[in-house]
Amino acid sequence: MPVNLAAPDPASLLPVPGVRLGVASAGIKKPGRRDLTLIELAPGSRVAGVFTQNRFCAAPVAVCREHLARGDIRALVINTGNANAGTGEEGLGRARQTCSAVARLFAIDAAQVLPFSTGVILEPLPIDKILPALPAAHADLAAERWSDAAAAIMTTDIVAKGASRQLRIAGKTVTVTGIAKGSGMIHPNMATMLGFVATDAAIAPALMQRMVSEVADLSFNCVTVDGDTSTNDSFVLIATGQAASPEIADAGPDYSALKAALAEVAIELAQAMARDGEGATKFMTIAVEGGRDRAECKQIAYAIARSPLVKTAFFASDPNLGRILAAIGYAGVQDLDVNALKVWLGDVLVAEAGGRAAGYSEAAAAAVMKEAEITVRVSLDRGDARATVWTCDFSYDYVKINAEYRT
Amino acid sequence: MPVNLAAPDPASLLPVPGVRLGVASAGIKKPGRRDLTLIELAPGSRVAGVFTQNRFCAAPVAVCREHLARGDIRALVINTGNANAGTGEEGLGRARQTCSAVARLFAIDAAQVLPFSTGVILEPLPIDKILPALPAAHADLAAERWSDAAAAIMTTDIVAKGASRQLRIAGKTVTVTGIAKGSGMIHPNMATMLGFVATDAAIAPALMQRMVSEVADLSFNCVTVDGDTSTNDSFVLIATGQAASPEIADAGPDYSALKAALAEVAIELAQAMARDGEGATKFMTIAVEGGRDRAECKQIAYAIARSPLVKTAFFASDPNLGRILAAIGYAGVQDLDVNALKVWLGDVLVAEAGGRAAGYSEAAAAAVMKEAEITVRVSLDRGDARATVWTCDFSYDYVKINAEYRT
Repeated sequence: MPVNLAAPDPASLLPVPGVRLGVASAGIKKPGRRDLTLIELAPGSRVAGVFTQNRFCAAPVAVCREHLARGDIRALVINTGNANAGTGEEGLGRARQTCSAVARLFAIDAAQVLPFSTGVILEPLPIDKILPALPAAHADLAAERWSDAAAAIMTTDIVAKGASRQLRIAGKTVTVTGIAKGSGMIHPNMATMLGFVATDAAIAPALMQRMVSEVADLSFNCVTVDGDTSTNDSFVLIATGQAASPEIADAGPDYSALKAALAEVAIELAQAMARDGEGATKFMTIAVEGGRDRAECKQIAYAIARSPLVKTAFFASDPNLGRILAAIGYAGVQDLDVNALKVWLGDVLVAEAGGRAAGYSEAAAAAVMKEAEITVRVSLDRGDARATVWTCDFSYDYVKINAEYRT
Repeated sequence: MPVNLAAPDPASLLPVPGVRLGVASAGIKKPGRRDLTLIELAPGSRVAGVFTQNRFCAAPVAVCREHLARGDIRALVINTGNANAGTGEEGLGRARQTCSAVARLFAIDAAQVLPFSTGVILEPLPIDKILPALPAAHADLAAERWSDAAAAIMTTDIVAKGASRQLRIAGKTVTVTGIAKGSGMIHPNMATMLGFVATDAAIAPALMQRMVSEVADLSFNCVTVDGDTSTNDSFVLIATGQAASPEIADAGPDYSALKAALAEVAIELAQAMARDGEGATKFMTIAVEGGRDRAECKQIAYAIARSPLVKTAFFASDPNLGRILAAIGYAGVQDLDVNALKVWLGDVLVAEAGGRAAGYSEAAAAAVMKEAEITVRVSLDRGDARATVWTCDFSYDYVKINAEYRT
């Protein structure tokens, strides 16, 4: 069951002026389930994205990159139940056909549509089901549909994921709302499964890519469930510019304020993926500090967060903490001095001077292990850099969910 | 249950002239269990080893490296139940105390003893139990004790692992016998959990390190269970020179013939680790060919072999083969052309031209998935290099074994 995670109250997901959403049932995997989402953007909206680094990137990811390069995006179309990945030329054709059909509904060009797919890999995208359902999604468009869209993009997710923030820029209220999906095949590399964050702030086009990359690095690029990087990871930032706040044209205080709000929303969504990680019973924060650079901190944090041995020990609430040391040791930081580092479980100092801490008490560690949310802190004592990674434990249910995924 | 793996018939593990083994019960974890092994080497034996690259290497690994550098090794001591890793200066001291106690029994120098430990990390080595049990192991020494030693070095292993070969060098019969243990925390980097291979051939000291490294690269460095690199990985090659065959002084035909026999034994032991991988129900061979170099083939093979999503699909006998494509895609081979590669499951062509193969039949793939031994073959079509990795699937029992490891 998801760890301390409930679906957002629909009223808490604030509409973003310039954005309307609609959902429909295309019957892609299960009849009657809402599995198709349209997002309409007002003219003048600016859009930027970061996408999977997987060489087997999905057809819709390839089309997104192409269309974003041309600019002036006006609509997004998202289906669940099929990833349209590992589908070759035919998959690209079907992603383009979907864009064309959406373009006709909005009387825009196909290149103004971004397509997204999530679900099973290596099976043909069922456009015979998707295209006929588009008009219903179009008829459903409304500004208050964020929570419906959050539910319609789920795959193995148990809980829909969404968050909103408001801030003031030059005296004007600006809204940020985002939704995301993902609970397995989660180890984003540049971006995550599917994440969409919109704001009515105005951002200069030249700053959009920088903003989306910086926000991804603080949020979706800090989460892992199973270490598998998806073929479809996509994180899209939308700025409609309808808040009447002045355009953010440089990386000054307004940029920082907006980035902070965007990052808050994105971090909440990224953490929600780990809380809703397949089979999760614990939410784990791995915080590494005192590194020479952020990269080595992240490398060590990810080694711990990915280790099946660490994750099963947490599932069992067993402070078998030597497994954490083993993961630190094989993380690949070549000149790491293991005698200089310290490891804490919650507030309990576990390891120092290359071995178990003098005052370590197994009972104290066992008490921390029983919590649903646990922080592992590692201090490397060789610099000022730090990085945090969020993950979940590894339970019987992870195996069950993934052994039975297609049945 | 181990996949097509039975403990070796004791009679099939041939004595190696110059090597005697003895076991005893020190009561390290469970009373009465044989958990302590001594190996005595005749004077003039040559020994070389490769060890874990984990920065948190165990105390005995550090001592082994130091003693091997001095040469003239005459005894090995191996305990199970405690890894003596993450134990700092005190752990080093206890490893040295163990060597000294063994040295007294054999009337040799402590630097002529190699210590090995395997078991739980971060707990003090119980020398109060080990030292008093050494005389019993010493009294037990005999040339025919290989299968007893194979059983006494096990941790979560279900089946003891050993193999023998014989070959002729210059008209003389030469014997190769090896034992190994390991079924979890298996993702060797330069060597594996614990592996000991002995031969009565004579090898020039200058060639020993080359031989052990080459054999490790063909065997123990090609297996993974859970992607976790142990703190204690050690693979040791012993050449007693008692076969009366001429000393192998260069990398000629005799070197190749002996290397082939050593590799056969080491590969059988390495495969046995995957067959006996924690919770294993399937034995998987991942063969990648047509690469530019062996490194990129191995990188892709390991990405597939480590993926929890691939491993759970195999556990379920579900040909959800898009997960293999995703793993290939995120393996980190930057300029990989996914449209050029092909993937087979057994004899079934699954993927080509970036998508599902034209003649692919799910029924045919499902039939392969039901087998206990399955080969995944990937052709990259960009060179002549190849690499093979052995692994096992990921079942409920992996979680169970590792959640309950210390109870």
